[in-house]
Amino acid sequence: MFAPAYLDWNASTPVDPAVREAMLPWLDASFGNASSRHEYGRRARAAIDAARAQVAAAVNAHPTEVIFTSGGSEANNLFLKGAAAMMKPGLVAVSAIEHPCVREPARQLRRLGWVMREVAVDVHGCIDADDWKSTLEARPSLVSVMLANNETGVLQDIGALATQAKAGGAYIHTDAVQALGKIVVDFRALGVNALTLSAHKIGGPLGAGALIVDKRVELAPLVAGGGQERGLRSGTENVAAIVGFGAACEAAVARMSKEQRRLADLRDSLDAVLVAAGATLFSTAPARLPNTCFFGFDGIDGETLVGKLDRAGFACASGSACSSANPEPSHTLLAMGVAPDTARTAVRVSLGRDTTAKQVTEFGGALIRIVDELKNLAAMAA
Amino acid sequence: MFAPAYLDWNASTPVDPAVREAMLPWLDASFGNASSRHEYGRRARAAIDAARAQVAAAVNAHPTEVIFTSGGSEANNLFLKGAAAMMKPGLVAVSAIEHPCVREPARQLRRLGWVMREVAVDVHGCIDADDWKSTLEARPSLVSVMLANNETGVLQDIGALATQAKAGGAYIHTDAVQALGKIVVDFRALGVNALTLSAHKIGGPLGAGALIVDKRVELAPLVAGGGQERGLRSGTENVAAIVGFGAACEAAVARMSKEQRRLADLRDSLDAVLVAAGATLFSTAPARLPNTCFFGFDGIDGETLVGKLDRAGFACASGSACSSANPEPSHTLLAMGVAPDTARTAVRVSLGRDTTAKQVTEFGGALIRIVDELKNLAAMAA
Repeated sequence: MFAPAYLDWNASTPVDPAVREAMLPWLDASFGNASSRHEYGRRARAAIDAARAQVAAAVNAHPTEVIFTSGGSEANNLFLKGAAAMMKPGLVAVSAIEHPCVREPARQLRRLGWVMREVAVDVHGCIDADDWKSTLEARPSLVSVMLANNETGVLQDIGALATQAKAGGAYIHTDAVQALGKIVVDFRALGVNALTLSAHKIGGPLGAGALIVDKRVELAPLVAGGGQERGLRSGTENVAAIVGFGAACEAAVARMSKEQRRLADLRDSLDAVLVAAGATLFSTAPARLPNTCFFGFDGIDGETLVGKLDRAGFACASGSACSSANPEPSHTLLAMGVAPDTARTAVRVSLGRDTTAKQVTEFGGALIRIVDELKNLAAMAA
Repeated sequence: MFAPAYLDWNASTPVDPAVREAMLPWLDASFGNASSRHEYGRRARAAIDAARAQVAAAVNAHPTEVIFTSGGSEANNLFLKGAAAMMKPGLVAVSAIEHPCVREPARQLRRLGWVMREVAVDVHGCIDADDWKSTLEARPSLVSVMLANNETGVLQDIGALATQAKAGGAYIHTDAVQALGKIVVDFRALGVNALTLSAHKIGGPLGAGALIVDKRVELAPLVAGGGQERGLRSGTENVAAIVGFGAACEAAVARMSKEQRRLADLRDSLDAVLVAAGATLFSTAPARLPNTCFFGFDGIDGETLVGKLDRAGFACASGSACSSANPEPSHTLLAMGVAPDTARTAVRVSLGRDTTAKQVTEFGGALIRIVDELKNLAAMAA
């Protein structure tokens, strides 16, 4: 099987072998509905409880604050729609660079009489201080700002934003799916009311995520029924995926400090190669994820470049993978004031635990070769 | 590991070995976000497309009518809330014996101005003809009646109900999670607008289900964001679970006609033992699932009996497993007019592909012994 070098760890990750081992019994002799009152059910329940403790520990939360969902998108929707359903319609404010699974549910609230506002970011992709101030003056009921951006890797100062938002009476949520396992994510220290996690971004399986939520926030369930997850997320629990999520949290946090340094070194070496080759780096803010490199070459379409790199044996992304059915240029870059033509050149490389120095070096070489070819083609066509 | 005989196949099922084989690559070298535009992403997309065709074929639907969800509960919620969001508030009618994941979302619609009505059933657990008629006279916009009940196994004549409901202008949905793999489920022949399926009830994994829906029904997504599943269910697709769901559909349909007869024979032999031992059978309607036996012994609490059976090495259920956190007697039996004290005696045995004649015989013996013990204890205490 042709296996290109995988350089798209922000889109999804291979399942960690230890995670896989933890999951396999739940696809075999251990099975059952965790609500069942027999041996099979009790074992499933105990496995879910253990995973809940692992997930909570990874982000310094209490296990009772963990609501398991089918993934990050569902958790983000659960916070916004679930909290809104328990309040009078008001203002919902989300940053202009949120993932669509935050922006879209915020937009959907308009149907219920809510006003939706996007908080601007500055040229670095950080929350714009003036727009933030005026947003808070408008007294939002619900605020959501992501901890780390999936495309640029830029981090927001969520601790400070949370203090300010809560002082104004808002509930504040942060989408931390790209942050977990890459930087410290501490639910208590951040001071947010709610936080979203996803298993498949950290070496866990697809199909599991969580909303970490403090109990002051009343939520209506998106999926109502059997009453699982304290009535906040019904449906028979996906035991294998939840067990894998727990194991992945533990593994990701355990290796983080070592990996942070290793990945930042690899990323910095790639940045240097890119700059020397004439690329524009879109993410050079000081506070950013250690594994993410977002760049473009003038006049070279990002999609085209990603296609060429794929055929050369390197898997990376142009826009955000989760919404790449959308041919529009990156909304994150547009929000940062990048011109659409420049935004269309964007390519994202994101590194992870299996990424080697050799892969990064070979990627840099292939990239320069392909960029030269494309430039020559363009010159001949001109 | 202590492994009791598993007689609770309506609650969940072990993963079929062939399904497990199909899933394993997706927890290993095959991984990736199906929206990614590289080799990993394309493989994931192709696997999802193949599974979609398998699921559609199993119920005689078109692949474009399949919306993958995280399970049956989500699919039921998606139909009720998603369709309601696109309509003016009206009447939503669901049968009194629906699973909580149909009744609860229907109740939640009241907040949005909807009127919710429960359609009565008769003593056999079939839709009451008079109440059905008067429900339709009230012109419901949305109707949901399950194809097979999870507790009694009783089947409804969904084809006839659908014709009548649609003639009155309603959209009609059926929860078919207990029917799939046990009886023929034909989306076209049933004539419903939407139908819910679940993988883990048919030898597939937890974490996958589907809403089969005809395109006349406009739906708002529960989970909005990246635009997956034609915008109706965002979130990175759970490839392993979807692949397993597809394989499980194919396997379940392939073995169905043979299994139907085998399971009905086993169930009939158990029924005979139960009747001889003085049990009340709650489900003797002619049209019922071949694998389900729902019964009770006067004066013997169902929960207690299930606990004793569990310790004796037999895993079965009292109320519906999915809502067994709820200590109330079975709402299905109450709706059938069974007295609460009698409903509290209910025990459900549900058989499946690994169930053997030996297990059923041994179960019958253990049950009679335990019932005698409990009766003697009760007599001594009296």
